[in-house]
Amino acid sequence: MGSLGPYQRKHKITVVGSGNWGCAIAKIVAENASSNPELFEEKVEMWVFEEDVEVPKTSKNYNASLAGPQKLTEVINSVHENVKYLPGIQLPVNLHANPSLEDAVKDSTILVFNLPHQFIIKTCEQIKGKILPYARGISCIKGVDVNSTGIHLFSETIGRILGIYCGALSGANIANEVAQEKWSETSVAYDPPHMDSQVPTPQRSPSSSTTDLVEFQHKDTTGQISEVKLQALPSAYPPVDHSVLKTLFHRPYFHVRVVNDVAGVSISGALKNVVALAAGWVVGMGWGDNAKAAIMRVGLMEMVKFGDTFFGATIDTRTFTDESAGVADLITSSSGGRNFRCAMYSVQRNQPIEEIEKTELNGQKLQGTLTAVEVNSFLKNQGMEDEFPLFTAVFRVLEGTMKADEIPSYIER
Amino acid sequence: MGSLGPYQRKHKITVVGSGNWGCAIAKIVAENASSNPELFEEKVEMWVFEEDVEVPKTSKNYNASLAGPQKLTEVINSVHENVKYLPGIQLPVNLHANPSLEDAVKDSTILVFNLPHQFIIKTCEQIKGKILPYARGISCIKGVDVNSTGIHLFSETIGRILGIYCGALSGANIANEVAQEKWSETSVAYDPPHMDSQVPTPQRSPSSSTTDLVEFQHKDTTGQISEVKLQALPSAYPPVDHSVLKTLFHRPYFHVRVVNDVAGVSISGALKNVVALAAGWVVGMGWGDNAKAAIMRVGLMEMVKFGDTFFGATIDTRTFTDESAGVADLITSSSGGRNFRCAMYSVQRNQPIEEIEKTELNGQKLQGTLTAVEVNSFLKNQGMEDEFPLFTAVFRVLEGTMKADEIPSYIER
Repeated sequence: MGSLGPYQRKHKITVVGSGNWGCAIAKIVAENASSNPELFEEKVEMWVFEEDVEVPKTSKNYNASLAGPQKLTEVINSVHENVKYLPGIQLPVNLHANPSLEDAVKDSTILVFNLPHQFIIKTCEQIKGKILPYARGISCIKGVDVNSTGIHLFSETIGRILGIYCGALSGANIANEVAQEKWSETSVAYDPPHMDSQVPTPQRSPSSSTTDLVEFQHKDTTGQISEVKLQALPSAYPPVDHSVLKTLFHRPYFHVRVVNDVAGVSISGALKNVVALAAGWVVGMGWGDNAKAAIMRVGLMEMVKFGDTFFGATIDTRTFTDESAGVADLITSSSGGRNFRCAMYSVQRNQPIEEIEKTELNGQKLQGTLTAVEVNSFLKNQGMEDEFPLFTAVFRVLEGTMKADEIPSYIER
Repeated sequence: MGSLGPYQRKHKITVVGSGNWGCAIAKIVAENASSNPELFEEKVEMWVFEEDVEVPKTSKNYNASLAGPQKLTEVINSVHENVKYLPGIQLPVNLHANPSLEDAVKDSTILVFNLPHQFIIKTCEQIKGKILPYARGISCIKGVDVNSTGIHLFSETIGRILGIYCGALSGANIANEVAQEKWSETSVAYDPPHMDSQVPTPQRSPSSSTTDLVEFQHKDTTGQISEVKLQALPSAYPPVDHSVLKTLFHRPYFHVRVVNDVAGVSISGALKNVVALAAGWVVGMGWGDNAKAAIMRVGLMEMVKFGDTFFGATIDTRTFTDESAGVADLITSSSGGRNFRCAMYSVQRNQPIEEIEKTELNGQKLQGTLTAVEVNSFLKNQGMEDEFPLFTAVFRVLEGTMKADEIPSYIER
């Protein structure tokens, strides 16, 4: 390996997912793998759901050999551009698009998950038992899985299925701006159970190793306890800690703060979309900047209260007010985010938000409307709708039992 | 007095100042005086610096008798519009414009101060000893008086000169939006020393009364102790407490939260303008919403830290993150506020901000640039420039020793 560093092995990185945000993160990770050869293998794998694409003649990477339908992975590997999901952005040459999920994750010690919600479980089931048992994960999937019975972090869902520890990355990160290397910040949350010592590196098949196991418990909002037996990372690897994760994600244009609060970082990413809908409505009504600021203030307070009420033991509520994943993401999302915009248009055009969704989002779905319904169903089950008047008001406006201009008097109580 | 309430006297209210924000607040106060006759005298005085104005023919209140130069107070009292400073807004008929400062404040128990900074001391000196000794004040003046030796709240300056207790009102309140009755929120901060009992009402000249005095100490950032002998309000009046202040300022379109933290509410109002300058620069450079959100997050953290460091004993840092005067005012000010706009234009047009100030503000001065210089002078004296990298960066960009595009790497540390 040519390195004189203290570790015999380097981390191999795989990004699972290759959409707009997936490619932006893969670009960052590959840039850092390249510039930190003492820690990371240079080649970074990215799993790409294979499909046929047309390379537009307007692409700066177009050449005659790319005429006609092409495999997306082959286009990425030859001209280093995801022409379909992140057009116009040059990807690093050491980022390898891999159409085989199993091959892409094989032997990787760090798995970065960046998939649409609906594919998470299926994807994890497919690679279960086929990854290194001591791999570590980072979920870049915004939001949480909320339903009437409880709230589940996607990082925990991933960790539980795969039997690994998984942290989270979230922040004020509109993907295209990050891909264009416009300066932004993000939050990486990572807090695995303490391991007293690292273990020797298994010599061959990693999955046959029977090294130290640390039991890792998570009690979710339903009281259900998930147990994961977590395998210690062999001592041949640099420990996966806050410093290594910062090195993996931090770029001059992408400033990372690493924190412990996985729950806070994850639920901020979900709840801010609910607030952004209300911000969009008041701006759509022409109520101005004061009103939008008031909605965001109340929304931030309810985010903090939600965290405190349902994750009190495990959350640091300062995540909401201090970190990029909290207040900053709320600000970005309530400025140009799609939930904000669609809500604003729905008032301005006097159309249901579902109509706006269809015309504005090319078949994609709004996250905020879904989360608002899920959060309400959960709060209703807890008998706590009145404790979160803004979240409740957003749900009621969506279901048509309240008008947007009634929000101020409703949340005033 | 016709009231069957438990108190023999009602509060008389005077608004000292009649600019854009002064008239917007006077309108609110007069509306509430009118609808709460058990607490307040209906007629509300507003001191107006007398000047000659022309009533534009486009005003809906124009009539032939208003042709030619008119006294501003007479226009306000006849057609109930401040045609110069808040044109187009109908003021309540019970709001009386008074060109005599001394007459306007005479016998008032609640004085609402809403003046440009440079007139505060002179105005207070002029009415010293001519107000009720047990009057209470509320300062709506945004910002604080910061210099190299210390930080002084305007509410304290007013209180010290007049020998009364003075609280503060500040929030996400662009004046024109409030005047147009667009919904917003505000923070009223009020925390006088505890008085064990109220005292009997003096029968005649209030200034001759020798009723209970409570000594009121304030230790400012320089360690200087100001002592005010505070006179208890006679028991004939309803106590001036959070409930009465909410009744005085709260409207269906202007939601009030009353808190104790006068220092937090006051310094938020100053520091957010410094942050708004940096937000304007990054937007001016075309860096997008993520970058603006990052600046605001860092700015909010430095506001909290500033409060904690220099007002630790007396401040509640949650004011910054929870109240309208904190995070919400920061959001409004970094969206459409004049500091934000002028900073943005200065980058877009490649002109010094002083040039933009001249062309955009009709001779008015930016608050943020002044505060940035004052805050830096104070931090430099404390040897703490490095502890507040965003505030320091804003100062350095203003003085020309740093470029706006260097802010991210400077604040990253």
